[in-house]
Amino acid sequence: MSLLVIGTVAFDAIETPFGKTDKIVGGAATYASLAASYFYDKVKIVAVVGDDFPAESIANFGSHHIDTEGLQVKAGEKSFFWSGKYHNDMNSRDTLITELNVLADFDPIIPANYQDCEYLMLGNLTPQVQQTVIKRLKNRPKLIVMDTMNFWMDIAMDDLLETIKLVDVLTINDAEARQLSGEYSLAKAANKILTMGPKYLIIKKGEHGALLFGEGKIFSAPALPLEEVFDPTGAGDTFAGGFIGYMAKAGTVNFDNMKNAIIYGSALASFCVEKFGTEKIKNLSAGEVAARVQQFVNLTKFEIITA
Amino acid sequence: MSLLVIGTVAFDAIETPFGKTDKIVGGAATYASLAASYFYDKVKIVAVVGDDFPAESIANFGSHHIDTEGLQVKAGEKSFFWSGKYHNDMNSRDTLITELNVLADFDPIIPANYQDCEYLMLGNLTPQVQQTVIKRLKNRPKLIVMDTMNFWMDIAMDDLLETIKLVDVLTINDAEARQLSGEYSLAKAANKILTMGPKYLIIKKGEHGALLFGEGKIFSAPALPLEEVFDPTGAGDTFAGGFIGYMAKAGTVNFDNMKNAIIYGSALASFCVEKFGTEKIKNLSAGEVAARVQQFVNLTKFEIITA
Repeated sequence: MSLLVIGTVAFDAIETPFGKTDKIVGGAATYASLAASYFYDKVKIVAVVGDDFPAESIANFGSHHIDTEGLQVKAGEKSFFWSGKYHNDMNSRDTLITELNVLADFDPIIPANYQDCEYLMLGNLTPQVQQTVIKRLKNRPKLIVMDTMNFWMDIAMDDLLETIKLVDVLTINDAEARQLSGEYSLAKAANKILTMGPKYLIIKKGEHGALLFGEGKIFSAPALPLEEVFDPTGAGDTFAGGFIGYMAKAGTVNFDNMKNAIIYGSALASFCVEKFGTEKIKNLSAGEVAARVQQFVNLTKFEIITA
Repeated sequence: MSLLVIGTVAFDAIETPFGKTDKIVGGAATYASLAASYFYDKVKIVAVVGDDFPAESIANFGSHHIDTEGLQVKAGEKSFFWSGKYHNDMNSRDTLITELNVLADFDPIIPANYQDCEYLMLGNLTPQVQQTVIKRLKNRPKLIVMDTMNFWMDIAMDDLLETIKLVDVLTINDAEARQLSGEYSLAKAANKILTMGPKYLIIKKGEHGALLFGEGKIFSAPALPLEEVFDPTGAGDTFAGGFIGYMAKAGTVNFDNMKNAIIYGSALASFCVEKFGTEKIKNLSAGEVAARVQQFVNLTKFEIITA
C-alpha cells in the first residue's frame, strides 16, 4: 500500500510584489508529496532531476518519509527550471524562463517496490507521461487523481483527452474547466467533463475556494480570506497533494471523504502561499494543520433551523 | 415594528444573451421589498414613481403585504428608467440608457406610521438621500443595512463616507470593497472598511458567494452553481432584501443570525437570476424557498472528525 506522486521536481525563481528568490526547489511533485506526507506515511515519488539538484533537498524528502527511489538523477544534465513574475493582483503571472532540461525526455520508470501503489497522484506534466505511469502500474490504483493545466489543452488536447479517460478525479481551475468543456457555466462545464472519463471533478477557484462535482452532488469549499498572499506558486499542487494524502489516510473513496480531503488540501494550500516556495509547508506541526482546518470549519458553519 | 425599504421603483429594459425585454418593473426597492416579504409581513417602502407606473404593479406590492403609503406618484412625471445589455459572461454589462426622471429631485418623505421602523434597508440610491432617511426617523432603527455601488464611489465619495458612518451593515461587491478601501486583499479591505462605521461588512462575490465580516469573525457563504444565469438584474437587491427580511424575522442582531440571513438572501437571489426581472421572485412558495435553502445546506456541509 502506498501513494505514488509523479510530477516535476525542479528549480523555480519567483518574483512577487513582496520580493524575489534565487533558484529555489519547487515542482509539482515536490509540493504534492510534501503535502500528502502530512496525512500518509507511505508517499513515493517518480520524477527526474539533473545532478545540479542539491543532495540536501533530496534528503529533505526523506525527513518527510517520502520514498525517493523513483527520483532519477541524470548525470551531466540540468534540472527543470521555471522562472515567473506575478502581477500585483497575484492572480496572473508572466513566465520569464522555461528550461525543460531533464524533462525533455523524461521516462517515468516505476521501481518494482512502487507496484503496491493504491493511490496515484498525477501531478501537472505532459499528459503522455501521466498516461505512461498509469500503464506501467500492474494493478490499477484504487484512486487516480490528475492535475493538469491550460498549457496542455493548448498544445496536447488529444493526449489530454486520452489521459483523463483513465482517471478518477480531475483537478483544474475555473478557466481551464471552461476551456476543456467549451461551457461558461461551471455547472454545465462539470456535467460535460464528467462524461469524459473522470467520476469526480474538482474546480479550483483560488481565493474563491473550490467546487467538487460527482455522484450527482456538488460540494462548495471556501478559501480562507488571507490578509496577504505572499507567493501562490505550488498552491494547486499542495492542494492536490493534501487531497490525495487525506484520501489515502481515510482509505475509502467516496464523496464525503472527498469533501474533507478538499478542506485538508485547502488548509495546506493556505499555508503554502504564506511564504516563498515550500518554505512554509516544509515544517508544519500537526497542531498548526488542525488549527487551520478548524478555521475552515468556523468559516462555513451555519445552522438553519427550519420552522 | 416594521421593516422600511428605500430605493428605486423603476422601469428596466434588459438585454441578455438569452433575450431582451421591453420596459419591465425593476428597481432596488422593488427587488428588496419583494424578497423581504417572504420572511416578514410588515415591509414598507419609500420610493418615487411617475404616473406612467402601472397601477397593477403597485397592487402587486399589496399582494405581498408591502405597504406602499410611502410610494410617491408624481403626476405628469416619468419613472426612473434604466436600460442595459449584459455581455456573454453575464458578469459585466453596458448601460445603454439612464433616465433619472422623478429620481432627479427625490425627497424621501417618511409617512407618520412608518416611524415604527426597526429595520431599515437603504437600497442603492444617492448616499445623500439614504442619509436623509436615517435622519428623518425619530428613533434609530435596531438595524440599518446599506447597499451601494461603485457609481457613488466615483461621483459622491464624501457623501458615501458620511452615510456609511451611520449604518450597521454595508453590502458591496468585491471590486467595490477594493475601491472603497484601496486594498486588494479582501481581508485587509474588510478590516479597513470596518473602521469606517459599519459593524458588519458583506462582500458579494456573485457566482463565488459572499463573505460576512464582523465581531472579529468571518463567514463564507457559497453561491449555488447554476446551469444558467438568465438575467442577473436585481440579484444584489434581492440578496439584501432577503437578508434584512430574515433578520427582521429572527429579531436579534448577531453574527449567527446574519449567517443564516445571508443563506436566505443568497437562496432568493439564486431564484432571481433564473428569469427576467422580478418574474421568478414574485411568486415563490414557502416550499420552494425551503428546498433551495436546503440545497445551500447540502452544498457546504462537511464533517471533520479530528483524530
